[in-house]
Amino acid sequence: MTAVTPEDLAAALDAVRLKAPLVQCLTNVVVAGWTANVLLAAGAAPAMVDNPREAGLFAGVADAVLVNVGTPYAETVAAMRAAVTSAGAAGTPWVLDPVAVGGLPWRTEVALALLQESPTVIRGNASEVRALTGGAGGRGVETSESPEAVLDAARDLAARLGLVVAISGPVDHITDGERVVRVANGHLWLTKVTGTGCALGALTAAFVAVNGDALIAASAATAMLTVAAETAAARTSGPGSFAVALLDDLHNLTADDLVARVRLG
Amino acid sequence: MTAVTPEDLAAALDAVRLKAPLVQCLTNVVVAGWTANVLLAAGAAPAMVDNPREAGLFAGVADAVLVNVGTPYAETVAAMRAAVTSAGAAGTPWVLDPVAVGGLPWRTEVALALLQESPTVIRGNASEVRALTGGAGGRGVETSESPEAVLDAARDLAARLGLVVAISGPVDHITDGERVVRVANGHLWLTKVTGTGCALGALTAAFVAVNGDALIAASAATAMLTVAAETAAARTSGPGSFAVALLDDLHNLTADDLVARVRLG
Amino acid sequence: MTAVTPEDLAAALDAVRLKAPLVQCLTNVVVAGWTANVLLAAGAAPAMVDNPREAGLFAGVADAVLVNVGTPYAETVAAMRAAVTSAGAAGTPWVLDPVAVGGLPWRTEVALALLQESPTVIRGNASEVRALTGGAGGRGVETSESPEAVLDAARDLAARLGLVVAISGPVDHITDGERVVRVANGHLWLTKVTGTGCALGALTAAFVAVNGDALIAASAATAMLTVAAETAAARTSGPGSFAVALLDDLHNLTADDLVARVRLG
Repeated sequence: MTAVTPEDLAAALDAVRLKAPLVQCLTNVVVAGWTANVLLAAGAAPAMVDNPREAGLFAGVADAVLVNVGTPYAETVAAMRAAVTSAGAAGTPWVLDPVAVGGLPWRTEVALALLQESPTVIRGNASEVRALTGGAGGRGVETSESPEAVLDAARDLAARLGLVVAISGPVDHITDGERVVRVANGHLWLTKVTGTGCALGALTAAFVAVNGDALIAASAATAMLTVAAETAAARTSGPGSFAVALLDDLHNLTADDLVARVRLG
Repeated sequence: MTAVTPEDLAAALDAVRLKAPLVQCLTNVVVAGWTANVLLAAGAAPAMVDNPREAGLFAGVADAVLVNVGTPYAETVAAMRAAVTSAGAAGTPWVLDPVAVGGLPWRTEVALALLQESPTVIRGNASEVRALTGGAGGRGVETSESPEAVLDAARDLAARLGLVVAISGPVDHITDGERVVRVANGHLWLTKVTGTGCALGALTAAFVAVNGDALIAASAATAMLTVAAETAAARTSGPGSFAVALLDDLHNLTADDLVARVRLG
Repeated sequence: MTAVTPEDLAAALDAVRLKAPLVQCLTNVVVAGWTANVLLAAGAAPAMVDNPREAGLFAGVADAVLVNVGTPYAETVAAMRAAVTSAGAAGTPWVLDPVAVGGLPWRTEVALALLQESPTVIRGNASEVRALTGGAGGRGVETSESPEAVLDAARDLAARLGLVVAISGPVDHITDGERVVRVANGHLWLTKVTGTGCALGALTAAFVAVNGDALIAASAATAMLTVAAETAAARTSGPGSFAVALLDDLHNLTADDLVARVRLG
């Protein structure tokens, strides 16, 4: 028996659509527009409030916060710190996306400091998760490891900090330190469009806003994106049309589709 | 009889296509690329000059300026101030888009200060316009009010400051303090793509560059975007393909189409 | 006989696909996402590391670096300087894209200083290249000159600094100071999508990463983009669908297609 059921994921999807959670995104400049469009297509409400004068205040009223360190600057890093402090005080769930952490010292230091502020979920690829557990990271946003290889370290990290770690890859692995969920959906073109991982981090924030079980929330976000990716890839001819169709299919994906198509392990 | 006619709008559209006005955009990082593409598709020439060392100089040579406070930073806010001061001195028309003003104190202060520099048009949703008139704003970019509810306050603001206020919503309302134009075109998917309101602000800047009657200009920009949205939605299956088709249809919309399809009130 | 052959370009394309070079992009906020998607579609691996604490370090491990001054800020300009210094020390090839240089004094000064750090290729439109040779530039990103008109000055600049200058236009001209390559492919819609020139700069960086002859590399990048643009335009109905199809066609373009379709002069 799996740790979560397809019906758990479907219920989480319905909740996102019903509640349209307000997701504050402090993310990188490369994917900001794409991330907002993914959240809108999925049924959430994005708000990109990422300056230090407003980020803390907004994290107190948002339903969830995403912190993605893809293009850190002095001012946006200060905003991230303010946002997670405020999220902690307000009980707002938040997601840490440690883009390219490991190979780059400054953002690694930033991410490790943010990690002390109790994120609800960490979402990264295997190299990024490895780096947060003390290992060496990859070069840029690429990863040379599989999620399987880093699972034990991720499980330890999750158990130690009391959070969920979601490792993206050919088969996504999500763990809360005890339970492990594997999602075997997806398509190679997800690696040919910038910001699909970043968008998954944002979707995860939308789901943790509406579901108190972060393992279900992270699994549902992963399932939604990767199932939609399969239907999008099936009707397109390259990464450009795939990305467009992905937005359509995130918007049109039903809870029944999700139950029928998700491959959980 | 309406304050403006479909033929007024069509003439403004022709003027944008003929003159290809250079529109300086100081906008948010989420929608910068999308905004440039909307302007290009419509026939204008975007230039994203938003640093304090160049923004003032460029506002003296641009045909119009857009100031959108969606993601303010110390440096870009300084650039906005330089740009509007220079625009005022040079007689360059400019548009203020007060994204998320009201709920967030810093940008509200920034926007209220910019408002003293005589924008040609303010374009926002009902909550944002309400906030500029002294009321409480919404949460993020969402609005809980209708354009109708804020029309009186908008009319007073327009009359007091001698500018045009364009309130986006299911039916857009545009007023110069005396006349009121209602544009009843559009589609729900405009709310499922990030930056459609921001793009309307930019289009409005393109139109004020070529038409000295800002009420006509703002109405024409609104009509162009919302009429194109209807044809785009009619042939697409979700917000992703809709956004792509919207660019095509902005590019292909003729003055005759605009006259035939616009619903003015 | 032309300075480079279609087969030279095809071999360069195969090398990009085989090696998937890691291209560090320090580019403007308008086109960052689009640029990453173009690189991914073409077969390269983008990494947008553009802060001063990390840019120098990363330029030592990247396969090539792109520096595009489209939206300079204090922090990103510092990162550009760090990146090119490091690239020079590490022998990493790099491309300078002098967006809107000439009309705007600060970025002109920045670009002229970067020019002293030995870029491998300069890619710009005629006005931007003119400005780097000491002439007056255009207004914004537009150009009023043809590549032909600026060719002699570009050839002198290339010979003097020992680099390649690629001038974009209806017919692209690429010169290393002795040889001149003309690429006569393309489509008008390339001027109706923001960042196609910027994306060409990024593609050029991907090609200089895998080919030591920068004249071939810059010509191959130009040919790839402009040939793909022709097939994309042939099956779309406006600039929105064109941009999407362009990503697909960059992904699907074969070396044989390139040989069959490129028009070299």
